[in-house]
Order: sequence, then C-alpha cells, then structure tokens
Amino acid sequence: MKSKHIIKKAFLLVGFFGVLITSASAQFQQDPVVSPEIHEDGAVTFRIMAATADSVKISGSWMQGWGASEHLEKGEEGVWELTISDLKPDYYIYSYNVDGVRTIDPHNPWVIRDVRNTFSAFILPGEGSKNVQLSGQKKGTIEEVWYSSPTLNMDQRRMKVYLPPNYNESDQDYPVVYLLHGGGGDENAWTELGFANRIMDNLIHSGEAESMIVVMTNGNPNQSSAWHVTPGHEPARESNSPNPMANERFEESLVADVIPYIEENYQVKTGKEYRAVTGLSMGGWQTQKLALKHPDMFDYYGVMSMGIIEETQFGMDARAHLELTNQNIGDLQESGYELYWIACGTDDFLFESVNNMREVLDSHDFDYVYRESGGGHTWDIWRMYLSEFTPMLFQ
Amino acid sequence: MKSKHIIKKAFLLVGFFGVLITSASAQFQQDPVVSPEIHEDGAVTFRIMAATADSVKISGSWMQGWGASEHLEKGEEGVWELTISDLKPDYYIYSYNVDGVRTIDPHNPWVIRDVRNTFSAFILPGEGSKNVQLSGQKKGTIEEVWYSSPTLNMDQRRMKVYLPPNYNESDQDYPVVYLLHGGGGDENAWTELGFANRIMDNLIHSGEAESMIVVMTNGNPNQSSAWHVTPGHEPARESNSPNPMANERFEESLVADVIPYIEENYQVKTGKEYRAVTGLSMGGWQTQKLALKHPDMFDYYGVMSMGIIEETQFGMDARAHLELTNQNIGDLQESGYELYWIACGTDDFLFESVNNMREVLDSHDFDYVYRESGGGHTWDIWRMYLSEFTPMLFQ
Repeated sequence: MKSKHIIKKAFLLVGFFGVLITSASAQFQQDPVVSPEIHEDGAVTFRIMAATADSVKISGSWMQGWGASEHLEKGEEGVWELTISDLKPDYYIYSYNVDGVRTIDPHNPWVIRDVRNTFSAFILPGEGSKNVQLSGQKKGTIEEVWYSSPTLNMDQRRMKVYLPPNYNESDQDYPVVYLLHGGGGDENAWTELGFANRIMDNLIHSGEAESMIVVMTNGNPNQSSAWHVTPGHEPARESNSPNPMANERFEESLVADVIPYIEENYQVKTGKEYRAVTGLSMGGWQTQKLALKHPDMFDYYGVMSMGIIEETQFGMDARAHLELTNQNIGDLQESGYELYWIACGTDDFLFESVNNMREVLDSHDFDYVYRESGGGHTWDIWRMYLSEFTPMLFQ
Repeated sequence: MKSKHIIKKAFLLVGFFGVLITSASAQFQQDPVVSPEIHEDGAVTFRIMAATADSVKISGSWMQGWGASEHLEKGEEGVWELTISDLKPDYYIYSYNVDGVRTIDPHNPWVIRDVRNTFSAFILPGEGSKNVQLSGQKKGTIEEVWYSSPTLNMDQRRMKVYLPPNYNESDQDYPVVYLLHGGGGDENAWTELGFANRIMDNLIHSGEAESMIVVMTNGNPNQSSAWHVTPGHEPARESNSPNPMANERFEESLVADVIPYIEENYQVKTGKEYRAVTGLSMGGWQTQKLALKHPDMFDYYGVMSMGIIEETQFGMDARAHLELTNQNIGDLQESGYELYWIACGTDDFLFESVNNMREVLDSHDFDYVYRESGGGHTWDIWRMYLSEFTPMLFQ
C-alpha cells in the first residue's frame, strides 16, 4: 500500500528577476509531502512531516466515539504515515495530535470549522459519496446575505441562501426550505459540514427533488453571525448560563424577520404549501416549536436527531415543551400539513428522546413519518437525511 | 502584560440525559487557552498548549521576510506564550512551528488559506484597520456563482460577486469593477485575504466610493475554481511547465465570458465608462494585457505591484509583452480612458519592473497616475490600494 511517491521532489521557483524566497514566491513552493493520498482502491494514506516527534495520532470523523484515535508510524525523512483501507465513500474530517498538540494536516489546504475546532477535510469518491460530489452540471449560487432582525434587536444578521441552478434564467418562483443547524453551529454549518448546496444541485439535476431555495440562518439568538466574524458571542462561553438556544426568540425571528425578507427579495412562491422547515438537534427542537406555535406557516416539517427530552437541559425546558405540545398539537392537526418527518439514528445519544416524542405524538393520534437509521449524532447522517427529506417536498 | 486569565476554567457540559462526551456535546467544551488575546493597549498575546514541546515559534504577516519567526516561552501548565506590543492595527495572519511541525493556532477558530497554506487570522482594532472592520450598517452580499466559459472550454467556472448594500432594494443599475488576484490565488483570495467586501461596505457608507459591483474571478485559466473545490489543477504542481497564468486565455475569457454573464444577470450599467479592472501581481500583468488588447472595454485600470519584467519568467514572455505595448499603446491612447493607475511598494521585489514599465510608458507619452508606497508584495498593501483605487472610480 505504501506509495513510491510519498515525497515528491521539492521544487522551489525562482522569483522574478531571480529574487529568491520572498513571501510571495515562496508561496509557490511545492509541498514535498502529499496528504491525504487517495489510492485507486479507496485506501487513504495520511502523512505529516514531524521529524522530532515522539508520537503522532489521527482522529477522524469515521472513528467511533469522541477522542478515538490511531497512531501514525514514523517512516523515512521524518514523515509519519498511516494508511486506512476500510473507509466507505463519504465526506470526512480529521485532525492530528503531535506530541499532545492538536493540529490540522499542514499538507492539506482544505480546512473547515466545526463549532470551535478546525479540521482538515477530504472526500473519498464513490457511489456512497455521490451526493456531496461537485455536480458536473450547472450549479446553484450561494449568497451570504445580511438582513435586519427587529425581533432580536439586531440591525444586521447573516444567513446563507442557496439559489437553485438557473435561478437567474427566468422569472420562475420557487418554494423554500428553511434549514436549521444544531447547537454550537451557525449559518456556515450546512454548507461547510453539510454540503447542502452540493446535495441540492445533485438532487435537482437527477430529478429527485424539485428546484427550491434553501435558507440557512444562524439559529443562535445571541449571535448576529458566526462568532469569529462578529466577535462577542462565542458558542461555548455562555453555555453555563441559561442557554439561549432554547429561548424561542430565534423561532419568532424566523417567522417575523427571515421569511418576510426572503419573500420580498427573492423569486419565491408564498403560502404554507411552498414552505418547509427542517433542522438537526437544536434545529430539530426549533422545528418542533415552529410547528406548535406557527401551525399555519409550513406544510413540511423535518425533525432530525431530536425528540422530547425528559429533563430540562441546556436551558431547554422539558416540561414546558410537553405542555406546549399537549396544548397546541390540536391546532397543528386542524391546520393540516403534508409531512411531519422524524429521523434519528439508533446510536444517537438523543435516540431515547425521539422514542419519547413518538409516544407523546402517538397519544394524540398525530400523523408523522418515522425514519430510523443506523448511526449517531453526526454529519454523515444529517447529510443523508437532507438527501432523503428534500425529495419529499413540494411534489 | 501577562494576563491573570491565561487559562480559563475548563467547562465541560453534561450532555442530554447525562450522556457524557459524545462527539456532539464535547464540541461545546470550552477551550481553556485563549489565543490570540488582544489587550486594551493593543498588545497581542499568542498562546499554545504544548506540554512536551522543546521549541515553539510563531511566524506572522507583520514580520519582515519569509521564514522570519519569534520564539514563544514556556509557561505554566504547558502553555507557551509570546506578547507582541508594537503591532499597528491591521488584519494579520500567522502560524506556529512546534518542534519543526507547522501548525495553525489550535485555540483560534478563524482559519484562512493563502495559496497552499493555512493560517490563523485576527484583526487588531484601531483607526488603521477600520477599512476591514465589519460595517455597522447594511452590508453587501457576496455570491458564489458558477458561470460557463466556452473560451476556456469549461462548462462551469466559479467566481465571487459582491453586490453593494441595498442592491435588492431598487432597480438601480451599478458600475462594475473586475478585481483580479495574484499568482497562486483564486476566486477566494480577495474576500479571504483582501476583505474586499468589508472595504467596499465601509467606503460606500462613508461616501468615499460609489456603490459598485465587484467581480472576483479565478484568474488561473487551468482552474475551474479554487483547487481544493475542483481537484486536479493545483497551483504549484504545474508551475514547472510553461505557466498558464501568462497564456492570456484568462484575459480573453474575462471579456468573452465573464463580462457578458455579469451584464446579463445583474443590474449593471454597460459601456466602458462603467467598467474598471484592477489586479495585483499576476492580476496586474493581466490588467496590462486587457488594456492593450481590449482598449474599448474599460475606462479605469489599476496595475498593482506589477510592471514589465525584463526576462521571461513564469511563462510570462517579457519581449512579447514589450512588443505588444509598443504596437498597441496607440490604440489605447486613441480609445481614451479616465484613469490608468499604477501602484507599487518600494520594498516590493517587483519594484524594478514597475520602474521599467513607467519608462516604457513615458517613452510613449502615456498618461498614468503613479502611486508609490512603502511596503512590499503583501496583502496589507493591496488592501490599502483597493481602498485608494475604488474611490477614484465612476465619479
């Protein structure tokens, strides 16, 4: 499995006029270490140059359990490496630990952020990862938009808006799905970690899903945008106070600020039959609240990896939520809806909360579709859910 | 200068139902090390937890010369640190070197990429960095757009388009500046490293610049997008072959593919009086070519940190360029233009090439405005140039 081309010949360009090694021209210096290297048989070799290190480990999103890792072996010229041959095609993230220091792969320029931490990223090609492959056909547009949120007392909040392929080509109006992230995430999560844009491009081109607009907001009512863009409200710093994720102000701002903005500024079909909302974890909690408090806004709901918790956690008031359900579920049933979709993995640490929610809903003879998958509370599962949920919309 | 709060109390949240340390809930774990810490007096403390390391160095964009670094000192509990107190307010990037391994700051979630390498980033607030501060007023929109480029035989190429604040609010048409990056860069460079969006927001709100659209293409004719998005054409891998940056096909695609796309799909004023083109380094070379080969397309030119080289380098044919200049400069003079702006820093390794270009232009009595600054071939200078160039446009 070891490649003969582990270390490519370092090639240093001579700058203009022979001025060598300026900061600009040194940028062109070829990295002599290739990592990750994806082999034709699907094996992946990870490498890092760390000549004096005593220990190098890798943690990857394919490993089971937080903190799991594998050791790399030291090879020639100070390059450590590990080849993994049993990965299934998917989008993966990973990091190294060199003598106790967590680091991204310095040889891989693709870096993404998940909550507080940065990771290196790669896609292992194959049938199983076709939903996150870049479409060969016309791709949709992603907009980074700032809008006003009087409900949250913020002049400016940021969101990402996906416009489907050929949006600009006609005056056609489109339905909209509002796609919510989980606790600690932000408006970047569904494109960086969820690749919602690629998933939608592929589903639309294959004819599996209708053309639709996807709106990805920031679901943290105390943030105006991802926290390194607008410093001051970091995701974890405030989590020991009553968690703002559960104060329901975001849900109100979605209805009062976001939806009107989208419907005024884009080519959008209006009315509940053209609106869907779905979210994972915290976003699944918010989706439940939206269904119960605004039953006339959406015809499609997707609750991913979240149910009804039995104890108040993260500032989520379990008893109040149960009361709200019992009180308002009749309005939701009366208003009507096309789809109430619940999805959870059997290894998800919130799996029991979903069982609990289903019992509550069953006791009200509430119609829903239940999708039980393998897997846990992770992005590979949520990408799969998005790929399954959106084809059911607006048909 | 040492903070009493170097190490904040680590705070580990208990997951829902008391299920501890899942991959999801562990994401909320508060990082006990704060880095960078920006003090009220403008000093900046950099830290990294590296308990067993023998040597930790930092390289930052404020240092002179590629490869320059400073040592951090080992302090309590395995945390290394260094405080720097003489930085002027600006947008900076940096990386660490721990026992010979290059790494970003694992405690700072803001990571950006420059060509092949990733860096940690921060803004030191102050008057000098006001152009890259997030505007408190309505911000413009950034679009990530895919367009067709028959000229480059590519069905899909990616670019970023900045739409000024309130673009959606009326049917107003806007002038356009085409903003080109340097060698090794791509369509992300001017937003990630150049913060063109923030610079434009601030200039437009202060009234210094007109409202305008900014189009940021990928100037590498062999790439359809940033190379980690569309693998296969990495910036350095092919640099030992005749460099595609100089084959002039990108310039042709800008005129034949990009400008028509923009003028068909956006609220744009057409005609040369409403078009500007500017670029740094390779983009400055491309700007010169566009002026000489398409003298009827633009009324405003900005050539940053690039002149006429004396020897053929990177596949740029110096003699052919000189011939083109001598042959076509009369057409450019006859066609007319509002501004031909040349800017370079005295420490730039291409400074002599700019002197050379000025001599050639002077020999033709060619009208231009020359802006000589301090500084070298670096992004702080190019951000400054953008802040100076765009207020001169479309007045």
